[in-house]
Formats: sequence, structure tokens, C-alpha cells
Amino acid sequence: MESKGLQPMDSEQLRENAHKMVDFIADYYKSIENFPVLSQVEPGYLRELLPDSAPNQPETLQNVLDDVQAKILPGVTHWQSPSYFAYYPSNSSVAGFLGEMLSAGINMVGFSWITSPAATELEMIVLDWLGKLLKLPEDFLSTGQGGGVIQGTASEAVLVVLLAARDRVLRKLGKNALEKLVVYASDQTHSALQKACQIGGIHPENCKLLKTDSSTNYALSPDLLSKAISDDISTGLVPFFLCATVGTTSSTAVDPLLSLGKIAKNNGIWFHVDAAYAGSACICPEYRCYIDGVEEADSFNMNAHKWFLTNFDCSALWVKDRNALIQSLSTNPEFLKNKASQANMVVDYKDWQIPLGRRFRSLKLWMVLRLYGLENLQCYIRNHINLAKYFEGLVAADSRFEVDRPCYVCLYVFLFYTPDWTSDLSNTYLFTDKTFLTRSSYSILFICNTFNFTKLADFC
Amino acid sequence: MESKGLQPMDSEQLRENAHKMVDFIADYYKSIENFPVLSQVEPGYLRELLPDSAPNQPETLQNVLDDVQAKILPGVTHWQSPSYFAYYPSNSSVAGFLGEMLSAGINMVGFSWITSPAATELEMIVLDWLGKLLKLPEDFLSTGQGGGVIQGTASEAVLVVLLAARDRVLRKLGKNALEKLVVYASDQTHSALQKACQIGGIHPENCKLLKTDSSTNYALSPDLLSKAISDDISTGLVPFFLCATVGTTSSTAVDPLLSLGKIAKNNGIWFHVDAAYAGSACICPEYRCYIDGVEEADSFNMNAHKWFLTNFDCSALWVKDRNALIQSLSTNPEFLKNKASQANMVVDYKDWQIPLGRRFRSLKLWMVLRLYGLENLQCYIRNHINLAKYFEGLVAADSRFEVDRPCYVCLYVFLFYTPDWTSDLSNTYLFTDKTFLTRSSYSILFICNTFNFTKLADFC
Repeated sequence: MESKGLQPMDSEQLRENAHKMVDFIADYYKSIENFPVLSQVEPGYLRELLPDSAPNQPETLQNVLDDVQAKILPGVTHWQSPSYFAYYPSNSSVAGFLGEMLSAGINMVGFSWITSPAATELEMIVLDWLGKLLKLPEDFLSTGQGGGVIQGTASEAVLVVLLAARDRVLRKLGKNALEKLVVYASDQTHSALQKACQIGGIHPENCKLLKTDSSTNYALSPDLLSKAISDDISTGLVPFFLCATVGTTSSTAVDPLLSLGKIAKNNGIWFHVDAAYAGSACICPEYRCYIDGVEEADSFNMNAHKWFLTNFDCSALWVKDRNALIQSLSTNPEFLKNKASQANMVVDYKDWQIPLGRRFRSLKLWMVLRLYGLENLQCYIRNHINLAKYFEGLVAADSRFEVDRPCYVCLYVFLFYTPDWTSDLSNTYLFTDKTFLTRSSYSILFICNTFNFTKLADFC
Repeated sequence: MESKGLQPMDSEQLRENAHKMVDFIADYYKSIENFPVLSQVEPGYLRELLPDSAPNQPETLQNVLDDVQAKILPGVTHWQSPSYFAYYPSNSSVAGFLGEMLSAGINMVGFSWITSPAATELEMIVLDWLGKLLKLPEDFLSTGQGGGVIQGTASEAVLVVLLAARDRVLRKLGKNALEKLVVYASDQTHSALQKACQIGGIHPENCKLLKTDSSTNYALSPDLLSKAISDDISTGLVPFFLCATVGTTSSTAVDPLLSLGKIAKNNGIWFHVDAAYAGSACICPEYRCYIDGVEEADSFNMNAHKWFLTNFDCSALWVKDRNALIQSLSTNPEFLKNKASQANMVVDYKDWQIPLGRRFRSLKLWMVLRLYGLENLQCYIRNHINLAKYFEGLVAADSRFEVDRPCYVCLYVFLFYTPDWTSDLSNTYLFTDKTFLTRSSYSILFICNTFNFTKLADFC
């Protein structure tokens, strides 16, 4: 940028170059529908296009942006494209993007309250706001013994609460009880739970993924859970953690929180609710029923970066007992001590998460809530769900398709019988090779969002 | 923003509002020296300034920016201020900021190669570039059995390699050997290691932080390590992990990698090198000696977000055996399967880290390397080190101060004898209450950077 005398953070250089970058990004969105959604490159494509080593001399921003256009964007799978339907919605927004910019602009590292009080306090406040929109029980709010925290992903959310639960029981039973600890969830649960178990040293055979089927629409059966717990206790094992899911990844199944939660409570089991995807819908009164029973939970998670217009990463986790997290994850070295922390006057989020450092992620969620407001956000959710329902009708009326299961929320599973279409589709639609049922025919997981409806209609 | 018909990602709305945000951020940098570096707010200040709940109706960007100015910035501790000297350097830059913007603009979630090939491939290439600048041995590059990956923080870096090492030894000895596993480091090591042990289920008494003193300038003594290992083996314990540090947080001590590495190798111990802070200096040939012996290491970590002008978070981790990471951290649920992954043709970084989702973080490091170039980056590092040396001379010549230990790299530990100054200083300089030695007098950890030299000179 400047060859003599590096001025790494000159405000006028920042202004000039960042304006250029804004236009580049706005132009990307303007033309995003021209790209194939799924990148068409072959493995290793980029190494042939870039030099073997970093340059000795500075290059211009224009050089780099030209390379982004010519070499990077063809290798991008365009998650923000209106034609993107894979995995789950991950809608960015102007508000989310602005919040991310501001966070990068301030670029502080908010591990302790003292390292930027506003970062910690805004996070507490905004998660209280969101908790109230979801009508979470009061003991999840920061005004009591609990509170919310932004994790990077739902994987980290389930990991930290699993560790808190593990250490709570090991404090009673001794460390060598680790091998007896048992975790429960349905077989529709996200793989993040198994990974958390691996990390936390839970024996793989003690991570019990209970079978579901169409009789419960793939929800975890309370009877099956009760029986598994009794069986395990009778063989000397120690049930300690239950993960229920509201809107599973494979089928958007909704586990019955109230009955599961009562079983967990009766057995002294930590009850975590993973509503990473579907949780957003619960800001609408008519969909709040999906999380009825959340008052029985010890922890609750939803990803604002999925279906809540907040840029990745922003995974909101609430716990009822923040001390359980802190007892498991706190470190307090001499070089991090400060008066406010020592006096227990403040929250230090470093003790609620795996990493030490953390970004100012609450800004983007705050901006989404303020720049859109609750009513707009509810409309946005309702619009998606209505589109999904309309789409369900179109598919059901078309003999080329078979409806696989009822549509919860917006994820819609169906089979189609013309695998030859895949070659046409691969340029426009992302799809997985197989359903989670490993059927031999193909299945596409479609998730409707505001933009993509025209495309879906065209397709049908 | 728009009250009727939410258009969450309209390109012209993005353009208009993001240009406003650029000016807000550039103005922040223009006036950053007017803020007290350390936020002066009291715990709980923000709750009184913000409403109790999210708004029903949208607000304007100007509303929000006014609140950022009036309510958020006073609660920010300004890590990017030229007068900031706490903890460690964490310099943002125009290039780093632009990279973060672009990453937020593309907003893809790159857990597998297929979800955006460019994200995975650029990360591999840029970490090869950086590895070459640091003259890491070839087996850390992605062209062999190893490779680099961007983690969020050094805490996550040490955690993932500790898990890989743990699981490698447990595959041999069985899971119940966990209680016998022993970790070694010096007592100057970052608390992240202890946290990683807690998470991974290593017994706290088996995380052995060996004593250091001024005779080795607080570096870990190979003799002490050898003795500890022999003692532990003789009591039936299983040494499995050694963490050496290049530039410890408390004193920038540099552990002797070559001798430590040989001991580790002879005992089949995973050898991790944490150069989170000081690693950046090694792009200058004259400071490369700090990591001599890194060829003995199994893994090496440096934080580009500390002293390499890359916005937080960007922690670069290299390993020699990527399969050890993958064996420990891989999950492969049906809904993530795809042809490229199943055919083992690609890297899927989800299996190298704790979370599933991941941002396009290589963009910012790529932009730092390209927009500045190696020679500028070397000048930047050298300038900091020269400033630190000059400062050391000033302090040594002033009878109000006592030099505590020699200055490695740029962190400089000294004592001063006029604690009354603290009240004056608190407005301008962040400081910790005590040194890591818990001396009764005060100590300030000063870290020089380009901007702050005038302030340091004024101060002295």
C-alpha cells in the first residue's frame, strides 16, 4: 500500500481503501445471482493461480481485488446467494455486516470486563433482550444466577455445558468416575455432541444416541430415555447429560422438552436444549410452542448466525447456573488479575468459553435487533415458513416427488426420482448425495428463504 | 432501516450504510488519542443507558451510531490506541481490517472444502507462505503430511494439539490410561495450557509447571525436564506432552527448543511450541534464532493477531502430522458427506479444530502479506524492537526505575518506586496491579509499538 514507512492504521488510508472495499462488496451482492451457487473448481485449483511465496514488496488494493474477482470468487460457494439451499439458512444482512465491520474497526479483545467493559455489558444486555423475545424463563437472564454468552458455534456451546456438567458430577464422585459418565440424545442430534464427548473424554460407547423413527416424527421418545437411564444406572453407569434438539439438522425433528426435562431433573442430569436452527422461529408467538418445556432446561442455545440475519459467528447460549461454567472453565493467572475481577463485581466471559480472547460479537446482534426491530424480524420468519408451506404443496402435487416427512419450520425433506437432473442442478442448487437415511435415491434438502422462492417455483 | 418489507441484503442499502460506517470508523481512528485508553466506566454502567428490551420498530443507523459514540465508546478499552501498552501488541491495520470486511461480506461457512474451496485452499497457501517466511521445516507445510490451520486463539491451538497427543497415546494404552498422562511446561507458560488440560480431562496434578528462575532468564531448564520425566516414569505415570514457549506472556522468556525437543523425542512426547507473541519477530533473519530447534517440534503456533497487523482472531498453527489432529477431531455425519471429502481429495478444516463452522480468516492474513510485503513487515518488527531497546536505555538511566530482567523482543519488565503515579497514569496507561512475581511494588508491562513511542518518551 505504501512502500516507504508503513502506516498500518492511518485513518485516511483506512477511509479511502475501505470505501473501495464497500463498493466491491456491494457489487458482489448486486451480481451474486450470476455465480453458480456451488463452486465448480477442482481440488487444488488455487495453488496453480497464486505464487509460491509472499511478495517482498507491497501490492496495491486493486491488484488484490482483481485477484479476489478472478481467482477467489470462482472458488467460493455462495452461501448468501438467493439460490443457496444447502445445510441451513445462514443469511447475512446489512445490519449484521455493519455490526461485523464495527467490531473489526474497534478490534478489542474482550476476555475480561476490564479489557472493554462495553463488550461484556452489551453482550449481557443483548442476550437478555433476545432471551426475552424468546420468552426464556427468567433464570436464564443475567439478572439472576444465570445469563447469556455468545459462543462461536453451537459446537462450542454444547461443549462448554457438557464440560460444566461433567465437572459438576466429577467434583462429587471423583475424577476416576469419568469412564462411567453417560450422555443421551436422539440419533438425529448434531454430530457436535459426539465431538464434545470425544473432547471431554467421555467414552464413545457412553454417548448414547437413542433410536428414533417416523412414529414420533424422529423426536426422542421419553419412554426410551427413561428405560435407557434405568438400564444404565443398574449397570453402575452415571447418567449426567441430556441433549434435546429443537429442529434437528437432518429432519428438523422437535424433541418433547417438557417430558424429557422432567426425566432429566428426576435423575440429576444436566439438560441442554440445542435449538441452533429452529430457535429463531420462537420469537413469533405462534411458534413459541416448539420450546415449551425449556423452563426445565439447564442450558439453551440458538444460532443467531443461522436464521436471525446475524453474520457468522454468533451462537447464543444461556445457562441457569453461570457458576457451573465458571468452575469448569476459569483460569486466573497473575497477568490477568485486576481489581474489578478480583472483587467479583463483573462478568469475565473468558471463564464461560474455550478460548481466552474474544471479539465484540454482540455489536452485530444489537444492530440486527435495532435496525430491523421485532416486528420486521417476525415478518421475516413468518414469510420463510409460509414459503416453505407453499412449496410443500407444490411438491406434494407433483408426481415426480415423494414427500418424505412433514415439514417442521422450513427444512423440507423429499425424494425425487430423476437422478439425471442432478447434472443440470449442480450449477444452481447445492445438494447432498444422500439423505441421512442413506436411501439409494437422491434427496435434496431445501430451505426456503426470502430470496429463493422464485427459483423454487421455477424449478417445480 | 426499512419498516415495510425487510430487504436484509439489498446491495444498494449495503453500499449506502457501509459507506457511513467506514466514515464512522475512520473518524474513530482520527480521534482515538482523545480517549482515555483504559475505559473509566463503573461496572453495570451500560444497563442504565440502554432500554430493557429490543425495539418493536426499526431504528436508523444514525440512532445506533449516536449510541455507539455516546454509550459504547466510553466503555471501550482502546486496544488500537497508540497509547495502549497492556498485555501484548494487538495491532490492527488497514489491510487486516479490509480482509475482515471482505470475509464478513462473503460470509460463507467453510467447514468442509466443498462449502467454499477457496477458503480452505487460500488458508493452506497463506499458511505455507507464512511458514516459509518463518523458515519452518518443510514438514510443517501442506505439501507433505502436515500443514497449517488458522485457529481463533492460541488457547484453541494448544487444546487441539493436546487432544491429538492425548488420543494418540490412549489409542495405544487404552482409555483408562488418561489418569496417568503427564504434561510439562515452565511456570511461565500461558494459562491456556492448564485450561486445555482441564478440558481434556488431564488430572490437574499431572499438569507439571516446572519452576524457572533468573539463572535461565525464566526459561525452562532441560535438566529439570529430564529429571521430572524420569521421576514420573518411575512412578508409573505416562509423559505425553511438552509445551515450550518462545516469548512467555509474563516475561517473554524463550525456552531452549533444541534441547527440549530432543528430550521430548527420546521419550515419545508430543512437542508443542507456543510462539504466540514472539513468533512474528522470526520473519527477520536476525531474530529467527528464537525458534532454532523448531525442527524438533510436532506443532508450532504464532498469533498473527498479536504482532503481525492482522485483526483478531487469527492464530496460525502448524502440525507435522495432520492425521493425528484428524483422528482426534473428525466427525463425519451423513449430512456433511460429499464426494470430494469421501474420496480424500481435499482438506476439511472442520477436522482440525473444535467448532464445526469457520470464517474466511485467511483473507485478512493474505491481505496483510500482499498489501505490506515482507520487507515492510520486517521493518515494522525491527522498528518496534529498536524502540524497546531505546526505551530500555532510558529506563536504566533513570533512578526512579529498576530494570527487572533483560528485554527479549519488545516486552519489558521493570519496577517503579512511586506508586502515587498510578492515579495519574490510569487515564493514559493500562497496567496490571502486580507482576507475575507478586512483588509488593507495582510493575508496568510496557510493550512498544510504532505509535506509542512519543508517549513513552514523554512519560520518561
